[in-house]
Amino acid sequence: MRALTYHGPFDVRVDTIDDPTPFDSEAAVVAVRACGICGSDLHIYEGHGFSPDLGFCVGHEAVGEVVEVGASVSRFRVGDSVLVSASTGCNDCAPCRAGYVLGCERGRSGCYGLGSMLPGSQAEYVAVPAADGNLVAIPEGVSDDAALVLTDNAPTAWYGARRARIQPGDTVAVIGLGPVGIMAVLAAQVFGAGRVLAIDLVAERRAAAAALGAEPVEGDPRLVVRELTSGRGADVVIEAVGADATIDLAMKIAARGARVSVVGVNQSSAFPMHMQLAQFNELEFSIGLCSVQRELPALLALTRAGRIAPEVVVTHHLPLSGGDDAYRLFHSREGGVGKVVLDPSA
Amino acid sequence: MRALTYHGPFDVRVDTIDDPTPFDSEAAVVAVRACGICGSDLHIYEGHGFSPDLGFCVGHEAVGEVVEVGASVSRFRVGDSVLVSASTGCNDCAPCRAGYVLGCERGRSGCYGLGSMLPGSQAEYVAVPAADGNLVAIPEGVSDDAALVLTDNAPTAWYGARRARIQPGDTVAVIGLGPVGIMAVLAAQVFGAGRVLAIDLVAERRAAAAALGAEPVEGDPRLVVRELTSGRGADVVIEAVGADATIDLAMKIAARGARVSVVGVNQSSAFPMHMQLAQFNELEFSIGLCSVQRELPALLALTRAGRIAPEVVVTHHLPLSGGDDAYRLFHSREGGVGKVVLDPSA
Amino acid sequence: MRALTYHGPFDVRVDTIDDPTPFDSEAAVVAVRACGICGSDLHIYEGHGFSPDLGFCVGHEAVGEVVEVGASVSRFRVGDSVLVSASTGCNDCAPCRAGYVLGCERGRSGCYGLGSMLPGSQAEYVAVPAADGNLVAIPEGVSDDAALVLTDNAPTAWYGARRARIQPGDTVAVIGLGPVGIMAVLAAQVFGAGRVLAIDLVAERRAAAAALGAEPVEGDPRLVVRELTSGRGADVVIEAVGADATIDLAMKIAARGARVSVVGVNQSSAFPMHMQLAQFNELEFSIGLCSVQRELPALLALTRAGRIAPEVVVTHHLPLSGGDDAYRLFHSREGGVGKVVLDPSA
Amino acid sequence: MRALTYHGPFDVRVDTIDDPTPFDSEAAVVAVRACGICGSDLHIYEGHGFSPDLGFCVGHEAVGEVVEVGASVSRFRVGDSVLVSASTGCNDCAPCRAGYVLGCERGRSGCYGLGSMLPGSQAEYVAVPAADGNLVAIPEGVSDDAALVLTDNAPTAWYGARRARIQPGDTVAVIGLGPVGIMAVLAAQVFGAGRVLAIDLVAERRAAAAALGAEPVEGDPRLVVRELTSGRGADVVIEAVGADATIDLAMKIAARGARVSVVGVNQSSAFPMHMQLAQFNELEFSIGLCSVQRELPALLALTRAGRIAPEVVVTHHLPLSGGDDAYRLFHSREGGVGKVVLDPSA
Repeated sequence: MRALTYHGPFDVRVDTIDDPTPFDSEAAVVAVRACGICGSDLHIYEGHGFSPDLGFCVGHEAVGEVVEVGASVSRFRVGDSVLVSASTGCNDCAPCRAGYVLGCERGRSGCYGLGSMLPGSQAEYVAVPAADGNLVAIPEGVSDDAALVLTDNAPTAWYGARRARIQPGDTVAVIGLGPVGIMAVLAAQVFGAGRVLAIDLVAERRAAAAALGAEPVEGDPRLVVRELTSGRGADVVIEAVGADATIDLAMKIAARGARVSVVGVNQSSAFPMHMQLAQFNELEFSIGLCSVQRELPALLALTRAGRIAPEVVVTHHLPLSGGDDAYRLFHSREGGVGKVVLDPSA
Repeated sequence: MRALTYHGPFDVRVDTIDDPTPFDSEAAVVAVRACGICGSDLHIYEGHGFSPDLGFCVGHEAVGEVVEVGASVSRFRVGDSVLVSASTGCNDCAPCRAGYVLGCERGRSGCYGLGSMLPGSQAEYVAVPAADGNLVAIPEGVSDDAALVLTDNAPTAWYGARRARIQPGDTVAVIGLGPVGIMAVLAAQVFGAGRVLAIDLVAERRAAAAALGAEPVEGDPRLVVRELTSGRGADVVIEAVGADATIDLAMKIAARGARVSVVGVNQSSAFPMHMQLAQFNELEFSIGLCSVQRELPALLALTRAGRIAPEVVVTHHLPLSGGDDAYRLFHSREGGVGKVVLDPSA
Repeated sequence: MRALTYHGPFDVRVDTIDDPTPFDSEAAVVAVRACGICGSDLHIYEGHGFSPDLGFCVGHEAVGEVVEVGASVSRFRVGDSVLVSASTGCNDCAPCRAGYVLGCERGRSGCYGLGSMLPGSQAEYVAVPAADGNLVAIPEGVSDDAALVLTDNAPTAWYGARRARIQPGDTVAVIGLGPVGIMAVLAAQVFGAGRVLAIDLVAERRAAAAALGAEPVEGDPRLVVRELTSGRGADVVIEAVGADATIDLAMKIAARGARVSVVGVNQSSAFPMHMQLAQFNELEFSIGLCSVQRELPALLALTRAGRIAPEVVVTHHLPLSGGDDAYRLFHSREGGVGKVVLDPSA
Repeated sequence: MRALTYHGPFDVRVDTIDDPTPFDSEAAVVAVRACGICGSDLHIYEGHGFSPDLGFCVGHEAVGEVVEVGASVSRFRVGDSVLVSASTGCNDCAPCRAGYVLGCERGRSGCYGLGSMLPGSQAEYVAVPAADGNLVAIPEGVSDDAALVLTDNAPTAWYGARRARIQPGDTVAVIGLGPVGIMAVLAAQVFGAGRVLAIDLVAERRAAAAALGAEPVEGDPRLVVRELTSGRGADVVIEAVGADATIDLAMKIAARGARVSVVGVNQSSAFPMHMQLAQFNELEFSIGLCSVQRELPALLALTRAGRIAPEVVVTHHLPLSGGDDAYRLFHSREGGVGKVVLDPSA
């Protein structure tokens, strides 16, 4: 099959590799109809990935059709239309059964396309372990674009917003308005935010947030957020970048008693936290990675009810065969690029 | 001054009575710019009021301008534009200081226009006790219509929705789509409801809810709510009527584990609760009366941010001089009547 | 095997019946080491049971050793020491996987010994459906008496206390001091209750609660609870009887804003609720039945840590062969009887 | 009057200074019956104080009798027995009225004895601003020792435990077993902790915690906490030291999904946070300073009910005249020293 593979910094190629087969009787294979490029794929693309492997198939966002199921798979059949959860678990231990796959007690939590261990889904086919727990049926009325955003970006944003314990009427600042940040804007609104302040260096991304009802922060956020809040700061800050500078910014624009929730990926072992400020302002700080399965029930209900439209973040549909260009475009943050969706059939 | 006074069932008159004076040094007098008729005024109008008094001035919803303040009033001055909270407290005990005026430890919780004790505000002027705690400044950008709805209807709906502990994605049924019920539809949306099912006997009221994004329930709600929820029932039911039949209905359309929150006024000492059903379905049931002061901070933030528009419930502006007609109209529930606002200057 | 069977009001007999076999490949059989008589068994004993069946084996509390497992059982083996959860589910649908077996989406929620459908465990052996979900391993250091109380009484009390949302420092009244009520006293303490007021008609039961740190209410609870709380009432009331009179009492001794949580079984279709009082006092009322599996993780942690000692409610150990006498004793509420444990080997 | 004053690192003297007078009509003067030395007094003692001032009266923990009140003080009279809250507010703005004095909107939040601005209470008398909000009547049955601990140490511990959102059955680690840490052990128990792991370098302090039901951690906490929790780590960590090393330790012994709550004072502007670890473990981190007034209602209820005994942390009663020795003793952490209480009359 054709697949995107990683060969070093800024070197993603369209390769022909073997079709995947189910790992075991609990696994399934999905024919990918659409797959997405995620912000964390850019970590790999830039050479700061999560594994030293080379040549592996990348990507962890996919929707498609089940084409093969192991003998022990009971919830899915060939022909089912599914979204492939970016996070995977064993579907057997107590945390996994409750959807908290990152807490898997059998050490089987994982993610596609971060190395050779679990091949990615920017390909024509993807093998899914413990399929009963790691596939989700796409409900009627949910488009492939929406479902694709629900495999990772939307749950990540939702997880960040949920942990921030937004109170109705709160002023919520969102830092970073890529697909996750835009979904965080929508999540904050569902959680009852009064105002959402949208922060990004790219004007088109601020405009995209503004179109959804957020207030774009024009100028130095340290000053402007204070101005917009009568000096108080934001009641909640959701950080969707992961850089040291933006996490630091999140702390600085937070109001006394605020919750700062980080969903951007940060790999520092010594982030310089301004502890005195945090103590004076009584901040609550949380950071983590999303167990997609745990967040999806609420998100699916809201999507089906029309309360959120995850597909709004999709800006480009490109062929898998132009995968290299697609990575370059998404990496550039130019031209109003948001979510890039790849078509494996083209 | 001119004022509406109650003289018996279906007998509300425009009277000329003495202008009010401050009760004491903590009180103020407000010149009323607009006042509203509330559903609980209809209890009085129908002869099922809260006091045997006759001839008293009715009404407990008002916005206007401060024209006189006692010597101890420190937060308001003559000329301030204010909303008069329907619920009153002492502004001194711990519950009142936290806005929970119905829990007043000094026995001073009250409401205007329920009898002779605290004259009503369907009049040119109204005297306000403990003004520092019972007046609220109208923030810039909030219209008189919005502020008037914020004196009682909106906080009552919000209180009911808040107690119902809506989870994002929940299906919320609202029973009774008068001004409180319509505000409950909006409140449910702010709290993250996935779907809002709108129940009322009056087609125009269902249509008004539908225009705000709710799904009107056409036909027998016992059947239709089950149909609309794959047999499950509503995750949350907010009851905004207060009749035995509608409270019973609320219990019957609730899903297993649902919260049923009643804000309609019910005076029964032996409501026939289907306890076996409630136990099998693990229902949580709450009922109460709203302390406006406690609910307003979030509501004001949401109103200022444009997340809710309380004025949408206002359908009629009428002169105070036609108060009798106004009561008749609101009581009829006909002609699409929602909130009726009276103008004391006309 | 020998088993207790029900033959009509006040007629429970020691019978010899066929040994049970696993229902299917997901089932198991447990050799019962100890079984308990529950308050809800008394409903059956009095002739107000849940089924018109006669001759069925009664009882739903058991601990013992696994002696047979179906081919699909993966979590238990022959020889394992287990407690048999009183509530059963399918172990497959989402609610059951999260422990909420009463919400089973496959209609397989149940309980042993309420009729012929699922035979009871007051016997030498009991067959357990969906064993992976309905058995729980007894952790090291937990005695059989403690484990037996954890099959039903302790989780029921915990469920009631949890739903009551006790705030640290609250005054909690517990009505009914049988085994469930005593466990509710302990649960209230774990949830941070300041004071626990213990109400029961039987002096020995009040004394048992007092020995655990509760304050026994001597005299008319309507008066005494007010006296003990400076007129305020109890912040939380847990009702563990289920009679109309005691549920009514619960409402009457509740403070303004209190939570009333009922775990006693009430089968009324028209309980006379004093709605006006409930509204004036802003009560929150909940009633339900416990999904044991959902409550056990916290309870097991607390038991293992020595924070609660469920075995304190056990007052009598009797042979299964004297089952009739045991029922009579527990029904009498005399002689300081609390939990009665039966030994199937005697 | 006699008072302890600060003159430089390790130089606290018994001085004779002017008796205080009320600042204004809202202030009061309290004759101090007992005053305490707090861990944050040691910051000053070591020369790392919060102000460059010298010669000022130190201390912020006091109980005593009101001897003078301003004309506007309405809740207290001469002769009242009171505890002086360590944190002060304006008693007028909304946050202060809700007890959240550190959020004072008028910029009047403060603390005694940190500099010349608000003189301390390690003296015969102390002047109290906004007395209605900053004094608390000592309820009957609460000893001076208990009340003294309630002025700061107990509320600080409670605040830390409350923010940590302990779930019943959680394993809670407490780092630092001075008076605040010991109170955190008790608070964790009230919040339903299953196990409390007690960490301190001083064996006597570990023994004191063990006497209250905690498990002393003997050896390297990084290893031992993992051992004691089957590799999992603590569900909650409360840090009551404030050093970089102990905050780092708190992060390292936390389980996946844990809450880390810091109440020790840390003045770093660049604490090296291991962000990658925090993200992988999905930690929630909070740090802050306590508004005593907000925490006291629950603590007073629990103290009166006998659920907590704040006086257990008191180990030494010494005369104010030996203040220098008392500081030296408390600073040494030797000889089993916990809370040191000074008697201004001796």
